[in-house]
Amino acid sequence: MDTKRINEFGIGDFIEGYYLIRSVDSKTSSNNKSFMDFNLADKTGEINAKLWDSNKEDEETLKNNMLIKVRGNVTEWQGKPQLKILRIRPIDDMDMVSIDDYVPTAPIESETMFKDIMEYVEKIDNMSIKNIVTTILDEEKEKLLYYPAAKSNHHAMKGGLLYHILTMLRAGEALGMIYTHLNKDLIYAGVILHDIAKLEEMDSSELGIVSEYTKEGQLLGHIIQGIKRIDKVAKDIGADEESSLLLQHMVLSHHYEPEFGSPKKPLIPEGEMLHYLDIIDSRMFDMNKALENVSPEGFSDKIWTLDNRKIYKANI
Amino acid sequence: MDTKRINEFGIGDFIEGYYLIRSVDSKTSSNNKSFMDFNLADKTGEINAKLWDSNKEDEETLKNNMLIKVRGNVTEWQGKPQLKILRIRPIDDMDMVSIDDYVPTAPIESETMFKDIMEYVEKIDNMSIKNIVTTILDEEKEKLLYYPAAKSNHHAMKGGLLYHILTMLRAGEALGMIYTHLNKDLIYAGVILHDIAKLEEMDSSELGIVSEYTKEGQLLGHIIQGIKRIDKVAKDIGADEESSLLLQHMVLSHHYEPEFGSPKKPLIPEGEMLHYLDIIDSRMFDMNKALENVSPEGFSDKIWTLDNRKIYKANI
Amino acid sequence: MDTKRINEFGIGDFIEGYYLIRSVDSKTSSNNKSFMDFNLADKTGEINAKLWDSNKEDEETLKNNMLIKVRGNVTEWQGKPQLKILRIRPIDDMDMVSIDDYVPTAPIESETMFKDIMEYVEKIDNMSIKNIVTTILDEEKEKLLYYPAAKSNHHAMKGGLLYHILTMLRAGEALGMIYTHLNKDLIYAGVILHDIAKLEEMDSSELGIVSEYTKEGQLLGHIIQGIKRIDKVAKDIGADEESSLLLQHMVLSHHYEPEFGSPKKPLIPEGEMLHYLDIIDSRMFDMNKALENVSPEGFSDKIWTLDNRKIYKANI
Amino acid sequence: MDTKRINEFGIGDFIEGYYLIRSVDSKTSSNNKSFMDFNLADKTGEINAKLWDSNKEDEETLKNNMLIKVRGNVTEWQGKPQLKILRIRPIDDMDMVSIDDYVPTAPIESETMFKDIMEYVEKIDNMSIKNIVTTILDEEKEKLLYYPAAKSNHHAMKGGLLYHILTMLRAGEALGMIYTHLNKDLIYAGVILHDIAKLEEMDSSELGIVSEYTKEGQLLGHIIQGIKRIDKVAKDIGADEESSLLLQHMVLSHHYEPEFGSPKKPLIPEGEMLHYLDIIDSRMFDMNKALENVSPEGFSDKIWTLDNRKIYKANI
Amino acid sequence: MDTKRINEFGIGDFIEGYYLIRSVDSKTSSNNKSFMDFNLADKTGEINAKLWDSNKEDEETLKNNMLIKVRGNVTEWQGKPQLKILRIRPIDDMDMVSIDDYVPTAPIESETMFKDIMEYVEKIDNMSIKNIVTTILDEEKEKLLYYPAAKSNHHAMKGGLLYHILTMLRAGEALGMIYTHLNKDLIYAGVILHDIAKLEEMDSSELGIVSEYTKEGQLLGHIIQGIKRIDKVAKDIGADEESSLLLQHMVLSHHYEPEFGSPKKPLIPEGEMLHYLDIIDSRMFDMNKALENVSPEGFSDKIWTLDNRKIYKANI
Amino acid sequence: MDTKRINEFGIGDFIEGYYLIRSVDSKTSSNNKSFMDFNLADKTGEINAKLWDSNKEDEETLKNNMLIKVRGNVTEWQGKPQLKILRIRPIDDMDMVSIDDYVPTAPIESETMFKDIMEYVEKIDNMSIKNIVTTILDEEKEKLLYYPAAKSNHHAMKGGLLYHILTMLRAGEALGMIYTHLNKDLIYAGVILHDIAKLEEMDSSELGIVSEYTKEGQLLGHIIQGIKRIDKVAKDIGADEESSLLLQHMVLSHHYEPEFGSPKKPLIPEGEMLHYLDIIDSRMFDMNKALENVSPEGFSDKIWTLDNRKIYKANI
Repeated sequence: MDTKRINEFGIGDFIEGYYLIRSVDSKTSSNNKSFMDFNLADKTGEINAKLWDSNKEDEETLKNNMLIKVRGNVTEWQGKPQLKILRIRPIDDMDMVSIDDYVPTAPIESETMFKDIMEYVEKIDNMSIKNIVTTILDEEKEKLLYYPAAKSNHHAMKGGLLYHILTMLRAGEALGMIYTHLNKDLIYAGVILHDIAKLEEMDSSELGIVSEYTKEGQLLGHIIQGIKRIDKVAKDIGADEESSLLLQHMVLSHHYEPEFGSPKKPLIPEGEMLHYLDIIDSRMFDMNKALENVSPEGFSDKIWTLDNRKIYKANI
Repeated sequence: MDTKRINEFGIGDFIEGYYLIRSVDSKTSSNNKSFMDFNLADKTGEINAKLWDSNKEDEETLKNNMLIKVRGNVTEWQGKPQLKILRIRPIDDMDMVSIDDYVPTAPIESETMFKDIMEYVEKIDNMSIKNIVTTILDEEKEKLLYYPAAKSNHHAMKGGLLYHILTMLRAGEALGMIYTHLNKDLIYAGVILHDIAKLEEMDSSELGIVSEYTKEGQLLGHIIQGIKRIDKVAKDIGADEESSLLLQHMVLSHHYEPEFGSPKKPLIPEGEMLHYLDIIDSRMFDMNKALENVSPEGFSDKIWTLDNRKIYKANI
Repeated sequence: MDTKRINEFGIGDFIEGYYLIRSVDSKTSSNNKSFMDFNLADKTGEINAKLWDSNKEDEETLKNNMLIKVRGNVTEWQGKPQLKILRIRPIDDMDMVSIDDYVPTAPIESETMFKDIMEYVEKIDNMSIKNIVTTILDEEKEKLLYYPAAKSNHHAMKGGLLYHILTMLRAGEALGMIYTHLNKDLIYAGVILHDIAKLEEMDSSELGIVSEYTKEGQLLGHIIQGIKRIDKVAKDIGADEESSLLLQHMVLSHHYEPEFGSPKKPLIPEGEMLHYLDIIDSRMFDMNKALENVSPEGFSDKIWTLDNRKIYKANI
Repeated sequence: MDTKRINEFGIGDFIEGYYLIRSVDSKTSSNNKSFMDFNLADKTGEINAKLWDSNKEDEETLKNNMLIKVRGNVTEWQGKPQLKILRIRPIDDMDMVSIDDYVPTAPIESETMFKDIMEYVEKIDNMSIKNIVTTILDEEKEKLLYYPAAKSNHHAMKGGLLYHILTMLRAGEALGMIYTHLNKDLIYAGVILHDIAKLEEMDSSELGIVSEYTKEGQLLGHIIQGIKRIDKVAKDIGADEESSLLLQHMVLSHHYEPEFGSPKKPLIPEGEMLHYLDIIDSRMFDMNKALENVSPEGFSDKIWTLDNRKIYKANI
Repeated sequence: MDTKRINEFGIGDFIEGYYLIRSVDSKTSSNNKSFMDFNLADKTGEINAKLWDSNKEDEETLKNNMLIKVRGNVTEWQGKPQLKILRIRPIDDMDMVSIDDYVPTAPIESETMFKDIMEYVEKIDNMSIKNIVTTILDEEKEKLLYYPAAKSNHHAMKGGLLYHILTMLRAGEALGMIYTHLNKDLIYAGVILHDIAKLEEMDSSELGIVSEYTKEGQLLGHIIQGIKRIDKVAKDIGADEESSLLLQHMVLSHHYEPEFGSPKKPLIPEGEMLHYLDIIDSRMFDMNKALENVSPEGFSDKIWTLDNRKIYKANI
Repeated sequence: MDTKRINEFGIGDFIEGYYLIRSVDSKTSSNNKSFMDFNLADKTGEINAKLWDSNKEDEETLKNNMLIKVRGNVTEWQGKPQLKILRIRPIDDMDMVSIDDYVPTAPIESETMFKDIMEYVEKIDNMSIKNIVTTILDEEKEKLLYYPAAKSNHHAMKGGLLYHILTMLRAGEALGMIYTHLNKDLIYAGVILHDIAKLEEMDSSELGIVSEYTKEGQLLGHIIQGIKRIDKVAKDIGADEESSLLLQHMVLSHHYEPEFGSPKKPLIPEGEMLHYLDIIDSRMFDMNKALENVSPEGFSDKIWTLDNRKIYKANI
């Protein structure tokens, strides 16, 4: 069976295929009957789906982040497509589908990215800096392999944080050859650590899907958490104070503007560069994604993360 | 001899008395002669002073934060009074003047204030919170006894930080009786800790005069340093995580606006109250000071810390 | 019969009880039949309710701000609960329910609050100030007994304005003992008069529910109206000009920022304090209310009047 | 004798002529001698002047706003011209110079302007509005004949307020013929009254020179004072409330932006037009003045009242 | 037959009459049937309309900007009126209705306005300026006769751009008689050219209805396009450089603020005046329109183009 | 003779050496004598210098941008060093000093940079884009060889614009290998053209020193001038419209924010990247320069072009 991609659904289509339950709620309709309200997803998009007259068993079986097989009709509700579910069940081994095909995932395998990042760590000469980075990467490796870089913005995908780090490292290395006064140790360590406390700020499933922010994330945020982490590790391993201070300052200042969370602007060139590496990588990601389905000489929708710009697809 | 107060100097006056050297520089004039450039102070104000044709011995003897006896004439230079020094020497024991009469000092004795603050600590019920506060106060008592609350703004005086804390505690206690849903433990601990890392942010002499900010102060700032301090002490003494988190959040948010250094706004009522206790205490201090020498129905000069307002002295 | 509280309604519940009609509209459905669209309320919340196939008599009987008895089923419509009305009628004397149980009301009885406020007036020494305040309170007593302090923000409840004033007076008295340079006459009078022209700015029913702003409210606003009122009363009773000017300035500046309606910032310490008394009282009210139904370690919804912050319920 | 105009002074010139003392201070030099520090003015500009070794008689004779005869040399001090005074004395009747030649004055005679304005008043049909305007103009005629429209910005000249009003009336009349839905009564009355309380906000000498703002001006400002004035006059003469309300709203909103003193924006078209009449008249005045001494294809200095723009003199 | 005006529709009315299709979409309902979704309009407003169970022929016949005859019932859907279509067909010649009665149109005939504008061109003395203007008007006459001045804001009507230009010319002429230092050639040419590249920025139908912005409009905008146009025409006809530069500067600066598209503020008085002529004309238009259906002492809805103000209808 | 570098001057030093006259004015002192006021410079800094009792010959001989030999004493004036000139004369051939040693100059020879840039042009595949760039570079080569990139900010040095372009090209090439979806033709052309109209905006001497902005620069600015230039060249050589439009959009948007001169933000990824290449290159230049004379663990002065940050010299 050839599962139709969600971004190809047309009103009136009959659908049979495998999809991911991004979220599910059990509700009661105005005529007092139970129904289930789904968001189904594949890599190409999402669709709302309804299972009318659901029963207890459905409610106990069908859960978030589960792959299911479904049959139904695509209808329209308030200007948007909606799937009216005829049959739905969890997959079993016979179905031979893999979760990796159903969640957005970084284009490089996580273990490979982790290894590549470790090679950059190897290039760090300053032992205090190197040890701080190594210690933290060791402690966080497991989560890093699946965490996204954000809940819904750029790099919101499985392995997204690793991918964001790795691309920034490559860009930092390239610019370091042009702006040779920059200290590469600070650049590499700053890139690796700048968002490391997103692992504490957000709760992510192993699919790289973030359900919510943690209370620490909301009361302090990943910048503050990251600074505390570096401070603690540096003291624990006896790193020199200047190195620790510089890394903390880079994390503190990497959002650049107070209203985006950085009470201090970068006061060292490596902090300035870190900010631009970060913003370039997220902007390139978002713009590239915005143009995916746009025809030449056409404009994308307004993209919230790009200040509501409509991005233009050049025709040259 | 009755030393004339600086705010009473008139152009043309002959002056003989004791003053404090707030700062001193050795310079060379356009006709290539050595002279010394002073800022002399007493509790009522400051005046620029010049010692023309100074010699090596003067330069080696006369230093910052030293009490001196001086004779001279008050002249005018570019619209401002300036003291032309005739004679100047350091005080000796015979002069029987005390440094405390020459630097702005909190109106309550430091040890008394410290004791009063400890009484508030005694009222804290939550043992984690109480222990965090007690530990930090113990470690910092020595510096607290003389540190000001700022380099040049409100409470820039010897013992100013203690005085700021104590007044806020008293106000917090009073408002806590009216807004009874507030947790007094958080209020008292938040007040005591909110500016505690100013001790690390600024370098202060024992006269309560700040010469400069530390590199940690400039690269991280007292809010971040305070959070790290609480985090470390809490972990060291095994305080519960929720209490530590709440105190860190209160410190983080007490400046309220991102552009003033708080990347998060208060998310608990006690944090909100801490912010207002802080701002009320500084504003009352500054306004009171602004009106010191203003006549009824008159206006003060523009006060920088009060958004350049000219404060009005009511006549009722 | 035990009337169920609205914040306890569950989808599917059968309801029978007494509620308040906050608003009601008669409408026609897409199949051209008449129906009535209600917002029903008790002290715990509001719910939308529909009476399908309504008739002329229903439309003539059921009006805003009326108490009714209703039977119906709780259904769900677009993610929110909705009451499908089976029977509805106005209450009669037999029902023995009181309107005061159905509208949000200040926690202290209005006459008591008014009396308490008058005791503060008694403490005012300056006769000009005292007479201005007394005159205005006399003229406005009737409306003050039920007016809320706002249409939909803080203290939007019957007697809310009195409650806001009284709490601020108590806080002002407490802080006046700590900041002793403040003139208590100005503080007390400023607190009492700061929002007095809200009585002219808004049209309120005797339930303390504001339907709309008056044209004077929209074209001038309560700050300007309040100043004119003080000016007129002061001239009528021959108050001294300085006192009148100071009170007008306090009213003018109490919103502090131009974009919130104050073209001048406070230029006297009592005006500065008035602003903070006002903002503290509204923030404490809103935060307290936001946390009413939040579990420990949970967050409230985004609160519009608190800059869309989600308030956290501490767990200590 | 042909008095040289100040804007024609060259460094090194010997000067003998009549000028106005805009301000004068008695000071003491660093070598402890008395001197007097003047700003001398004619219609073309101002120059700083020093009388060294002044005596008591000089200090008692030479006062602000007095015409004097002076001899001296033009020198340079810190990049600016300065007059070194050789002789100076007040004028006497023999000198036959008139103060009107020494202060900036509106280009139309004040009595003529007042009469022209009264002709616009005659065109007002609504009797309430007409009476309010007539009453206030009657009460203020004396001051209006010499008051400027500002302390140092546009129309800071004798009769400047009348000139500003008259030009705006003419522009309002012209635009009223194009935008025929506008009510001319409101336009004429709004123009006449919009700045009327500048007479209370500023202290002006009869030369149209403002020395300072009044305490009412600083604590309330001319917008608030103007509203109170209209309110009072309207009540005194029994004008209808709607007319009074509209005029007050126009005065309140004519600065348009909260940060410029208007807490409400215009909500009627006549208020909107009043704002633009006001701003056009002040901008045309300032730009015209900025270009007075600029050569074609040249730029003026930065003009503070024009957002520091340098205005360009077109060459066509 | 007397066609009912859309702003007079009541819920439950039966309607038969002629309207304009502003937009139409073919959709599929949740029960999988085809229907068509219209916005119908006349000069008084718009209404959503549904044709249920539509067929292929309907979809091929009924298009945007077409006049139709329709029968139906006015129902209510989510608080707004909606027309349930019973019959619908395109008009034919027998219907004797004219498109001009169905689209908002300037109150003066386009050819007349164009002729009036050419009379202003005749008054321009500077031949370079006159030739630039004449050349561009010649090239654009055809589009000018129907283009609106905006997609959805002020003067969004057939011939709206001409009407905007003509009214501004009349106002500019009137103010030029009062502010006589202004160069009328620049004023007239600036007014005519300031929005000329809106013809390139937007795609308008001959009904004056703009469907979308062009790619040049989005990537550069009408200010930049207008400057390029003037530059090119000036070079082609050999106009003098100063004249061309001044006109380009006026177009560049006429939006006044960077955030509204003008990177430079006006540096010549004629540019300053152009800005105010433009803004006055659009504000008067919008305010007048806002008050069309408001009763005395009532307020309009919030008007987006007027900063969400509710405009007040004075009652004098 | 070993000429002392200006940044090594000490108060009291006797100086003899070669320096550049950055600016010179002839003035008259308060005792009516002629003197000359210089700013002398070498590559390390500037110093104010005075030649007292100057004569006509001095004034006719000594001009801006001239190399001179000077003898004098370093004194102090108002806290800053000042050179009191004893003797001064223009250099002659015997002095064997080269102007290149006295003006800040790019670290690569201009012809070499130009050739390197042409190699990037060779890599452009799109012939329209390549031809536009080639044409403009050909026309501007002469000026490009010495123009700075700014009057006083980053890259204000001889050949600074070429150096800025070349470094950005290298960075753009490096990042293009990482962000492979970018069109390198647009990147290279955008970098080369983004500031090209600075050649029209500023008047530069052949030393790369800008005396002032042109009238076109002030009335339109280099962004608008650059767009017009591209537009004209593209039309002249028959380039395709899309290419020309994209380049114009990139120039228009490269300052990113309206308040910095870009009314549109980048709507294509290459425009986004151009902005960051530009800002990174200027920031790295300014930070590097700021740290030139700072000791480890020290801070620079406040740098205006870096938002008044004090940059920190890391000590690792």
